Amino acid sequence: MADQSYTDAELDLDLRWWDAANYLTVAQIYLQDNALLRDPLRPEHVKPRLLGHWGTSPGLSAIYAVLNRHIRRTGADVLYVTGPGHGGPALVASTYLEGTYSEVYPHVGRDAEGVQRLCRQFSTPGGIPSHVSVQTPGSIHEGGELGYALAHAGGAAFDRPELLVACVIGDGEAETGPLSASWKLPAFLNPRRDGAVLPILHLNGAKIAGPTVLGRSSDDDVCAYLAGQGWAPVVVAGDDPRPVFRALDAAVASAHARIAEIQRDARSGVDTRGRRWPAVVLRTPKGWTGPHTVDGVLIEGTHRAHQVPLSGVRDNPAHLALLEEWMRSYRPDELFDAAGALVPELAALAPVGDKRMGATPYANGGRLRMPLAIPDLARYALEIDMPATTLHETTRVLGELMRDLYADTTRPDGGGPFRLFCPDETASNRLGAVFEVTDRCWQLPSTADDDGLGPDGRVMEVLSEHLCQGWLEGYLLAGGHGIFASYEAFAMVSVSMLIQHTKWLQHAAELRWRAPVSSLNVLLTSTCWRNDHNGFSHQGPGMIDAAIPLAPQVVRVWLPPDSNTLLSIADHCLRSTDHVNLIVVDKQPHLQYLTLEEADEHCAAGASVWGWAGTEERVPGVPDEPDIVLAAAGDVPTQEILAAAELLRVWVPHLQVRVVNVVDLMALLPESVHPHGFPEEKFVGLFTAGTDVVFAFHGYSRAVHELLHGRTGPERFHVRGFSEQGTTTTPFDMVVLNRMSRYHLVLEALRRARRIPERGTELADFCRAQLARHHDYVREHLEDMPEVREWTWGFTAPPEG
Amino acid sequence: MADQSYTDAELDLDLRWWDAANYLTVAQIYLQDNALLRDPLRPEHVKPRLLGHWGTSPGLSAIYAVLNRHIRRTGADVLYVTGPGHGGPALVASTYLEGTYSEVYPHVGRDAEGVQRLCRQFSTPGGIPSHVSVQTPGSIHEGGELGYALAHAGGAAFDRPELLVACVIGDGEAETGPLSASWKLPAFLNPRRDGAVLPILHLNGAKIAGPTVLGRSSDDDVCAYLAGQGWAPVVVAGDDPRPVFRALDAAVASAHARIAEIQRDARSGVDTRGRRWPAVVLRTPKGWTGPHTVDGVLIEGTHRAHQVPLSGVRDNPAHLALLEEWMRSYRPDELFDAAGALVPELAALAPVGDKRMGATPYANGGRLRMPLAIPDLARYALEIDMPATTLHETTRVLGELMRDLYADTTRPDGGGPFRLFCPDETASNRLGAVFEVTDRCWQLPSTADDDGLGPDGRVMEVLSEHLCQGWLEGYLLAGGHGIFASYEAFAMVSVSMLIQHTKWLQHAAELRWRAPVSSLNVLLTSTCWRNDHNGFSHQGPGMIDAAIPLAPQVVRVWLPPDSNTLLSIADHCLRSTDHVNLIVVDKQPHLQYLTLEEADEHCAAGASVWGWAGTEERVPGVPDEPDIVLAAAGDVPTQEILAAAELLRVWVPHLQVRVVNVVDLMALLPESVHPHGFPEEKFVGLFTAGTDVVFAFHGYSRAVHELLHGRTGPERFHVRGFSEQGTTTTPFDMVVLNRMSRYHLVLEALRRARRIPERGTELADFCRAQLARHHDYVREHLEDMPEVREWTWGFTAPPEG
Repeated sequence: MADQSYTDAELDLDLRWWDAANYLTVAQIYLQDNALLRDPLRPEHVKPRLLGHWGTSPGLSAIYAVLNRHIRRTGADVLYVTGPGHGGPALVASTYLEGTYSEVYPHVGRDAEGVQRLCRQFSTPGGIPSHVSVQTPGSIHEGGELGYALAHAGGAAFDRPELLVACVIGDGEAETGPLSASWKLPAFLNPRRDGAVLPILHLNGAKIAGPTVLGRSSDDDVCAYLAGQGWAPVVVAGDDPRPVFRALDAAVASAHARIAEIQRDARSGVDTRGRRWPAVVLRTPKGWTGPHTVDGVLIEGTHRAHQVPLSGVRDNPAHLALLEEWMRSYRPDELFDAAGALVPELAALAPVGDKRMGATPYANGGRLRMPLAIPDLARYALEIDMPATTLHETTRVLGELMRDLYADTTRPDGGGPFRLFCPDETASNRLGAVFEVTDRCWQLPSTADDDGLGPDGRVMEVLSEHLCQGWLEGYLLAGGHGIFASYEAFAMVSVSMLIQHTKWLQHAAELRWRAPVSSLNVLLTSTCWRNDHNGFSHQGPGMIDAAIPLAPQVVRVWLPPDSNTLLSIADHCLRSTDHVNLIVVDKQPHLQYLTLEEADEHCAAGASVWGWAGTEERVPGVPDEPDIVLAAAGDVPTQEILAAAELLRVWVPHLQVRVVNVVDLMALLPESVHPHGFPEEKFVGLFTAGTDVVFAFHGYSRAVHELLHGRTGPERFHVRGFSEQGTTTTPFDMVVLNRMSRYHLVLEALRRARRIPERGTELADFCRAQLARHHDYVREHLEDMPEVREWTWGFTAPPEG
Repeated sequence: MADQSYTDAELDLDLRWWDAANYLTVAQIYLQDNALLRDPLRPEHVKPRLLGHWGTSPGLSAIYAVLNRHIRRTGADVLYVTGPGHGGPALVASTYLEGTYSEVYPHVGRDAEGVQRLCRQFSTPGGIPSHVSVQTPGSIHEGGELGYALAHAGGAAFDRPELLVACVIGDGEAETGPLSASWKLPAFLNPRRDGAVLPILHLNGAKIAGPTVLGRSSDDDVCAYLAGQGWAPVVVAGDDPRPVFRALDAAVASAHARIAEIQRDARSGVDTRGRRWPAVVLRTPKGWTGPHTVDGVLIEGTHRAHQVPLSGVRDNPAHLALLEEWMRSYRPDELFDAAGALVPELAALAPVGDKRMGATPYANGGRLRMPLAIPDLARYALEIDMPATTLHETTRVLGELMRDLYADTTRPDGGGPFRLFCPDETASNRLGAVFEVTDRCWQLPSTADDDGLGPDGRVMEVLSEHLCQGWLEGYLLAGGHGIFASYEAFAMVSVSMLIQHTKWLQHAAELRWRAPVSSLNVLLTSTCWRNDHNGFSHQGPGMIDAAIPLAPQVVRVWLPPDSNTLLSIADHCLRSTDHVNLIVVDKQPHLQYLTLEEADEHCAAGASVWGWAGTEERVPGVPDEPDIVLAAAGDVPTQEILAAAELLRVWVPHLQVRVVNVVDLMALLPESVHPHGFPEEKFVGLFTAGTDVVFAFHGYSRAVHELLHGRTGPERFHVRGFSEQGTTTTPFDMVVLNRMSRYHLVLEALRRARRIPERGTELADFCRAQLARHHDYVREHLEDMPEVREWTWGFTAPPEG
C-alpha cells in the first residue's frame, strides 16, 4: 500500500538522514580522529581495536528514520525498543542526530568536536559500551543478554494508553525462549486502557556465525507463525532503500491506523477481542549499504557483516581505501555543515522535544512515576495478643494490601499505576484478595466457568516467569509500580533477568538524567521448607545466593517472619526506588509474632533481640553476656529457633539465652560492604563479641558465612539451613532432614554454650530421643507417617521428673 | 482417517486398560486403604491429605494406551516424555500396569498388596512425589519446573535413528519461554541419522486457576503457529472416548508412517529439507471421565479439575459417595482379578520387555552409554619450556580435542556419541577446530556463503541457552556425551535447568536400577575478566555461587589456569558419570604455565604449591612457614598472583612467599562437606595453619569465604575477586577496578605478611604509584587509554636503586 502523502522530496530527506546515521555508525566503529573525514583518511585516524556491530545497524537506523517521519506526521508518542541491542552505534547516532544525546551529555556537542568525541568514546576504554545500554537515551532495554525486548515492550505499554511501543526484534533474538514466549502478548494487551506494541521483526538472516531459523524460513511460514499468535503481519523486504523506505513507511502508517481503530473501538465499548494486532516483518540485508565484497568474499547480506566488515584497516592500504570509499559514499560533507553540525534541513526531520524517541519520558519512567498511595497498614494488620500462639497464612495480608492498591490506583488521584505479575499462582500464593477488585487479564474468549478472569483484569498471570519478570521490568522502567510473585524455586527461571536489571539500576544511578524508578519487588513464596507436598524440584532457595554478590547499592533481601513484618517490609519496598527487593516468606499457615507497631520497629532496625523469647525478660538481672545466642532469619527458622529457646527455657532455665531475629539479611554484611550492613558495635550489641551463635537460616547455610566474613568472631556462628534434603514428606521431617529442627538446634546450643547447664545432658538425651523416635517412625510407617503438628507457644513437652 | 485395522474388540480392550489406568490414578490420589474397593468405601480409607493432579492424567493415560497398541503393532522403540509432569499418578499407573514398576520396585508387586502399596506411597510422606520424577520408570524428565519437555525430547532423539520420542506438551507448559523456543526443532533434527520427535500438544484448556493461551486459541491459529515452525499438525478433539481413541490411534499411525517415509527418503539420499514433521494437537476435557459436576459446580473440562476434584471426602458423606461412584464407574472388579492382578487380556496389551515405555533403555541411558574413546591428550598439549612466557587462547586445545571426538565417534568402535551445544559462539569461544570435521547442524535452506553449515553437521548452535542445555540433558539421559559451551554471563539464563538436573542426578544415584549417565559438562568461557570490550551485561560469574550449595556428590567446579590443565580437566570430566562439571576458563590469549604432565599432576591433586613461582625453590633452606601465601583460582587471578609474586621476589627477596594454585574449587570445602574437600592436614599443608593468605579468585570473592568456613583460621584469607565493577575498558583496568590487580595483591600481601620486609615500604609506594598513574591516565585520557600489555615472566620493572 503506497502512502500518497510521502513525497519524493521527503523520501530524499529521510534517506539523507539515514546516510548521516549510517555515516556516524561507521565512524563510531572505526575512527578515533578525523571523524568527519575533513582530511584524507590515514591509518592513525583508525582505532587500534575495532569493535562494534555493523550488521544490524543500518536496519535499525532506517526504522528510526521512518518512525521519526511518522511521529512528526501524527504527533504520536513512540518508544523505540531495540531488540538487536548490539546495534548500539545506530541508536547513539540517531539520538545524536535528533539532539537528545547532546542534551544529556553536553560534552558531546552538536559540532565537529562533538562528533569527534562521539566517535572516540564508542566501545573504547573509558567510553561507552558498544551495545544499546542504560547510557543510551531513549532506551529501557539493555542490548546484552538477548530475549527480553518484546516482554519489555509489552510491560511499558501496560496502562499507558497513548503510547506506541515500536519493538524491533532481531532474528537472532527470536530464537531465544523468552522472546518466543513473548509473541503471546495479544492475549494480554488491552486496547481500551493499554498502549500498543508494534513488533518489527527485523530479519537480516544471520547471527554471529550462521543463519537464523526465522531468517531462513519462508515469508509464509513466518507470517503463519505470527498470525497463529494473534498478529496480522505484513512483510516489507528488499535491498533498494527507496522502495523499502516507502514500503516501511506505509506499513507503519497503516499499522498505526489499524491500532488506532482497534483502540478507538475498544474505548467506545466495542468488543474487540479476536482482532489481530499489526506486526511488520522487515527483511533487509545484513550490513546494508556497507562493503558488498571484500577480498573477493561476499560480506553484505551474510553473517560476515555481523560485526566489523573491514578488518586490518590500519595495515592494509586497500582496506583503508575501501573504508574511506564506503564512508564517503554517504557524502558527509553534504550532511554536516562547516562547523560539524547536521545541516538544517536534516535536523528539521527530528520530532520536537519529548516527542523525540531519545527524549520520550516513557523511556525515563521516573519522570512519569507517581508515588503509590499506600493505605494505612493498620487496615490489614493481624492482632497479636501473645506471640506465637496463632497460625495464619502469612502472605494473605499482602493480597489484601494489593487489593486496595488496585482499587486506589484506578482513581485519578490514586498514584500508581500498580500491577501484580505472577505465573498462574496468585490464588495458590494466598494473594487471591486482589480478585475482589480486579480480574486476571485475558483478551481471548471466556466461558461461564472462568473465575476472576476478564479483559479489563489487571493481574498478569501467564505461565512464564520470563514474561512476568520482563513485563514488570518494562512496566517499572516506564513509570509503574508492581510486584512479581513466584514460587521460590521457580524464580530461578528468570534469575538472569534479575541480575541484568540490577546491573541496569546500578549504572542508571550514575546518570543524573535518569529519574528514579520504582524498585523491582520480587516476592518469593511457596518456599523450600513448605513444599514438602511436592517433589524435589520445588525446593530451591538459591535466589538469595544469586542476589548477595550483586551491587550492594541496589539489592536487598528481606526475610519477614510473619504477616505484620511482611506488611511493614512491603510498604517499605513499594515506596522505594531503584532497588531490587527480594522478599522471602511462605504462604502456608505460620505462627504470628509481632504487632504491627512491633513489626515496624523490628523492620526499621533490620534485626532485634526478641527479649520475650529468650531469658532476658524472664530472668531479671541476667548478666550482659548470654551463654548462647539463638538467631533466626526466615519464618520456619524463626519457628524452630523459638521452639528451641522454649525447650532450653523449660529444661535448663538458668542457661542465659538470647534470641535474635534478622529480617534484613544484608545487615549481616559489614558496614563497609553494604549500606544496610550494621556498624560493628550494633552487630556486637546483638550477637555479642564472643558468645557462640546458633543460627537458623531460611536458605543455604553457607550463604550466612559468606555474609559474616569480616565480623567479630565469625567462626562462632553455627548455621543450619536448607541443604538439598527432603522430597515429598512432612514439614517437620523437612527440618529434621535438613538438620534445622528445634532438637538439632538445642543440641547445637548445648554443645556451644559458654557453660554446661544442669540437666543439659538430660535435655540432650531428650532431643536425641525425639529425633530417634521420628527416625524410627519414618522408617517403620513410611506412607502413613502423620503430620507433626506445628509448634505453638507452650507446646513443647515439659521436662519429665 | 479411520484406521481399518483397529478393531472394535481392540478398542474395547484399550478402553478397559485406560479404565484401569484412570482407576489407579484416582486410587493413588485418594486411597490409603481398600485400594481395590473390595469393601464399601469408608472415610478412613481416604488419605488425610489429598494431593495430586487429576486434570491432565486421563489424557496422559489415553496417549499411553494408544502408544502401547502402536508399539505392539509396529515394534517401534518409543520414549514417552511427559511435559505435564504433574500428572505423575497417570505415568505411575501405566508403568505399573505394564509391569515395569514392579520390576524396578519389587515391593510394589502385581497383586492386591502391591496395589495397596502403590496407592499409599503416592504423594505421601516417605512415599513418592506427585510429579513424574526420577523415580518414575521410563522418564527422562522431571515434572516440576515446566518448559523443557520438547528440548529433552529433541536431545534424546539426536543420534538415535531408531527412536520415536512421543512428547506430550501441556498447554500450560506451552506458555513458557523454553518450550516456545523448542518448537524450532525441525530446523535441527536430521531424519537421516537422528530419531524422530512426535509432539502431542495436549490442550485441555486450563492451568491451575485459569485458561491457557493455546487452549483458548482456535484450531486454525494453533495449526498456523505450528505449521509456521516446520510441523504438519493434525487435530484430534472430543470428549467421547471411543472416537477420540480411534482418531488418536489413526493420527499416531499416520504420523509415524509419515516420519518413516521422511527418514527412509533421507537415508536413501533424498534431500528431505522442507518436509514437515507430523505433530498432533489433542483436545480433550480436563479431568476427563472424572466428576462432571460437584455441588452444582461444573468440574470436568474446567480449571477446577486441575488437582483434586472432590475435596472434604472424609467428612462429607455425599462427596464420599460421589468418589465411590466415580471409582466404581471404572469397574475395578473386572480389571483386576481376585488376587489383585491385572486381568490377563489387559496385561497382554502391554508391549514386551524393553519395548515397554517404562522399560525402554532410551529412558535409562546409562544402559546405552558407551565410554568415549578419548585420544591421547599429548596430541593437543602445548609445549611449555618456561612457565608464564607464552600466550595462547586457552580454549583452543579443547576445540581440537572435541574435533577428534567428533571424528572418532563417527567410527563404529569410537564410543560416544558426542555433541557440542553452544549458542552461536563456537567460533567466538575459540572452539572452531570442530568445524574441520563437522558442521553446524542445519536443516533449513543453505546458501553458498554459509560457512561450516550443513544438514549432517553435529555442532548444535541455536541462540538459546535453554535449548542448548535442554538438548544436552536429553542427549545425556539417553546415553550420549556432550559439552555445553557458553559465555559465562549468559550461562545464567539456564541456571535453573542446571539446578534441576543436579537434583535429578542426586536422586538418580539412589536408584540402583538407573545406570550412570555421562556428566553434564558446562564450559563457561568469555569470562567476566575479559569481556572488557563488551558492556556491563556481559560480566557475571554467578554460576559458581549457584552451584556451590547444590548436592556435593554431584557438583564440581573447575578453574584451570591454562591450556594443559584445561585438557586434563576436560578429559576427567568427559570420562566421569553422574556429575555436573562447571569448567571456567577464558578464551582470550593467556599465559601458559604447566606441561601436560605437570597439569595432570596438578589437576589430580586439586591444588598445589607452585614452588617455582614462590621463594621455596629459589631460596634453599627457607623455613617451613612462609611469611605470606599467595593463592589463585582461575586464569586471570593466576596471572595477577604470579605477577604479584614476582614483584615481591624482585623487591623484597627475603620475604618468604608461597604460591598456591587451586584448580578444583570444591577442595576448599571441608572434607565432611564435599567428597573433593581436602582433609584438614592437606589443606594446612598447602595454606599453612597460621600464615595469612592473599587469595585472587575468578568469581565473587565472598564465595571463597562461603567455602572456607570450618577450615583452620578462615579469617586469615583475604580474597579479591570480581565485584561488579567495570564496563567497556581494558583487561588491566578490569583487575584494577575490581581491586585484584598485581599491585593490589602486593599491597595486601605486605599488609598481611608475618613480618615487614626491608624495602617493603618502597615496594608499597611503587604499587600505589603505579595505581595512581593508571588512575590518572584513565581520568585524563579516557577514550584513548592504551591497552596495558599482558604480564609475562620478567616483565615487572626492576627495583630502582
